[in-house]
Amino acid sequence: MIPVKGYAAEAVKVPLAPFNFERREVGPHDVLIDIQFCGVCHSDLHQVRDEWGGSIFPMVPGHEIVGRISKVGDHVKNFKVGDLAGVGCMVDSCRTCPSCQEGLEQYCETTGMIGTYNSREIESGAPTYGGYSNQIVVDEKYTLKVSDKLDLARVAPLLCAGITTYSPLRQWKVGAGHRVAVLGLGGLGHMAVKLAAAMGAEVTVLSTSPNKEADAKDLGAHKFVVTKDEEQLKGVANYFDFIINTVSAQIDLVTYVNLLRRDGTMILLGVPTEAPHIHAFNLISNRRRIAGSLIGGIAETQEMLDFCAEHNIMSDIELINIADINDAYERMLKGDVKYRFVIDIATL
Amino acid sequence: MIPVKGYAAEAVKVPLAPFNFERREVGPHDVLIDIQFCGVCHSDLHQVRDEWGGSIFPMVPGHEIVGRISKVGDHVKNFKVGDLAGVGCMVDSCRTCPSCQEGLEQYCETTGMIGTYNSREIESGAPTYGGYSNQIVVDEKYTLKVSDKLDLARVAPLLCAGITTYSPLRQWKVGAGHRVAVLGLGGLGHMAVKLAAAMGAEVTVLSTSPNKEADAKDLGAHKFVVTKDEEQLKGVANYFDFIINTVSAQIDLVTYVNLLRRDGTMILLGVPTEAPHIHAFNLISNRRRIAGSLIGGIAETQEMLDFCAEHNIMSDIELINIADINDAYERMLKGDVKYRFVIDIATL
Repeated sequence: MIPVKGYAAEAVKVPLAPFNFERREVGPHDVLIDIQFCGVCHSDLHQVRDEWGGSIFPMVPGHEIVGRISKVGDHVKNFKVGDLAGVGCMVDSCRTCPSCQEGLEQYCETTGMIGTYNSREIESGAPTYGGYSNQIVVDEKYTLKVSDKLDLARVAPLLCAGITTYSPLRQWKVGAGHRVAVLGLGGLGHMAVKLAAAMGAEVTVLSTSPNKEADAKDLGAHKFVVTKDEEQLKGVANYFDFIINTVSAQIDLVTYVNLLRRDGTMILLGVPTEAPHIHAFNLISNRRRIAGSLIGGIAETQEMLDFCAEHNIMSDIELINIADINDAYERMLKGDVKYRFVIDIATL
Repeated sequence: MIPVKGYAAEAVKVPLAPFNFERREVGPHDVLIDIQFCGVCHSDLHQVRDEWGGSIFPMVPGHEIVGRISKVGDHVKNFKVGDLAGVGCMVDSCRTCPSCQEGLEQYCETTGMIGTYNSREIESGAPTYGGYSNQIVVDEKYTLKVSDKLDLARVAPLLCAGITTYSPLRQWKVGAGHRVAVLGLGGLGHMAVKLAAAMGAEVTVLSTSPNKEADAKDLGAHKFVVTKDEEQLKGVANYFDFIINTVSAQIDLVTYVNLLRRDGTMILLGVPTEAPHIHAFNLISNRRRIAGSLIGGIAETQEMLDFCAEHNIMSDIELINIADINDAYERMLKGDVKYRFVIDIATL
C-alpha cells in the first residue's frame, strides 16, 4: 500500500482536516500521479454535507485533479513517468455495458460509474478517495493527457466544470448560428460561456444582478440580460436555441423556458435539492425541450482537454492553500468566487 | 353570408344547445364543406369550460372535421366540388414567418395559429366556429384531402388525435428498434399505439388498470405494464426510448421518467392544469429529455392522413347524435369512451 496524505471530512458536517491514508499499490494498468492542483467543485460540498444521501466517511473530496506521473504499471501503454495527467469525476466503470462500450462510462449500466471519491472500487469494495491529497493511483483508461501549454492550475477545473459544459454543447451540436444562453455564472457557467463562444455560438449571460455584465463580457459573452428587468426579458422571449442551466438553487424554470425559441432546449446541469415545477404548456407551445446531461465520457473528456489546449481555454480561478478549504466552502455558498477555487497541493 | 346551424355553448359552464349563425361567403381561395362527422376532443371540453382561460362565447367547438366539398372559390386549385375533405385544429396563420414557411404553422410566430374555433380571423377579427355544425368555410391551404378508402366517421379523429401523436413520432424518427411506451389509453393514446406500431416500434401500454390489457393488445400494443405493480414497473426501468405521455391529469412524472433509457425522451402531449414536478437528477442521471409537441403542420397532417390510408389506420369511435353531446362530455370526464366520440352531423 502507498501511504498518502490529504484532507478529509471525518463525518457529516465536520470541517475538513488533515488525514493520512493509504492508496492501493500501482497495478499493471495503473499510473501513480503526484497531484499538483485540485479544483473545488460545488458537488464536493454537497457530498461532504451528505446533501445527496449515502455519503461515505471519512471522505477525501476532489475530482478536478492534475499532476505529474511518477510511476506506471508494467502494462501501461499511454503514459510514462514525467507526463502531465488529469483525473476527473470517475476512476472506473464496468467497461462492458453498452454505455461503456460507446464511451459514455458516466452512464454505466452495470456498476454505475465509480466516482473518484465517495464511491467504492468494483472488486475490493474499498472506498475511493479524491484529489485533496498528494498522490492518486488510477487505471490509465480513466486517466487523461494534459497539455503542457496551459497553466496547470487553471486546467484542473476543466476535468469537471469543463467537461460538464462541453459534453452537452457537443451532444446538441452547438455552433455558429446558435443563440446560447448561460444561466448561472459560476464554475460551470463561466466555462459554458468560454466553450460556447469558442464553438462559434452567440452567447448571452442571463443574470439577476446587473453588476456581472463586465465580467460576463470579459469571459466572452456577446450579450447580457438582467432577468429582473421585465423589458430586457421580453426582448429575448422565444429567442434562444439553448439555455445552459447551471443553477443548483431552486428557480422558476418557466420564466426561462419561455425564452426558448421553437425546438429550443434547456440543458439542466445543476441539481436543485427540490424538484422544480415545469408546466407542460410551456414545452408544448413551442415544441421545447428540457434535457439533462452528466459530465462526459473519458474519450470526450480528452477531446475537451485537447479543444481547450487548441483554443487556449482555461478556468478563471482563485488559488488557495489547502488549510483554507473550509473557508473556501463558506465563500462558495455565498457565490463569492471567480470562478473556481483550486487547491495548491504543494501547501498540503 | 352563409346561414349555418350548429351546437354552441352560449357561456362558460352552460350546456351546449342548438345555435344558428353565419359563415363568411366562399372567397376566391375558400372551399365550403358540408360536414358529415366531427370528433369530440378533450380540448373541446377544456375550452367550453374555459379551463385554459380566454374562451370566446358563444363557442361552437369541434376541430376534427370531415365532409364533402359543396362549393369552391374561383382560385381554388386543389379541391373540386364532391371531394372529401378534412379540417383540423387550425384554419389560418400568418403564412410568412419562419415557422409558417417551414410548414409548422401551429407554431406561427406572428399571429399565432388561428384555431378552428375559439379564435379570431386575422383580418376581420370575427370569431371562428368549429365543426359541431353543418357547414364550414375554410381556405384551401388549411384544408386536407381525405381518402375515400376509409370509414369517414373513423377518419375524423385523425385530424387532431391522429396528427398530435403522429407529429412527435415523426419528429423523433420513431421506428423499428425503438421501444415506445404510451401513457394514457384515451383518444390520443389509442392513436399513438396504432401509429407507433405501424412505424415498426415495439409498443408498450402503461396503465394503472390491469383490465385494459386486452384492449391494448387489440389496438396493436406488444406489451402491457400495470404501473401500480412495483415488480412490473421495475422490469421496465431504464427501458424505453420514448414515452408518449397523453395524460392531462396531474401525475407523478418522476416514476415514468425513470423508465427511460439513456437518451430517452418523454413527449408531453397532455396539458395538466397544474405544473408537474420534475427532478433534475432524473434527467441528468441518464441524459434523458422531456419534450413538448403541439398537433402538426398542414403538410404533415396530409402526410399523416395518407399514411393512415396506406396502413388502414382509423380511430376507434363511438358515434353519437349531436343532441347527446353534453352527456358525452360527462362520460369523457369519467374516461368512459373507447376511444373517441364522433358526432354524426346528419343528426343536427
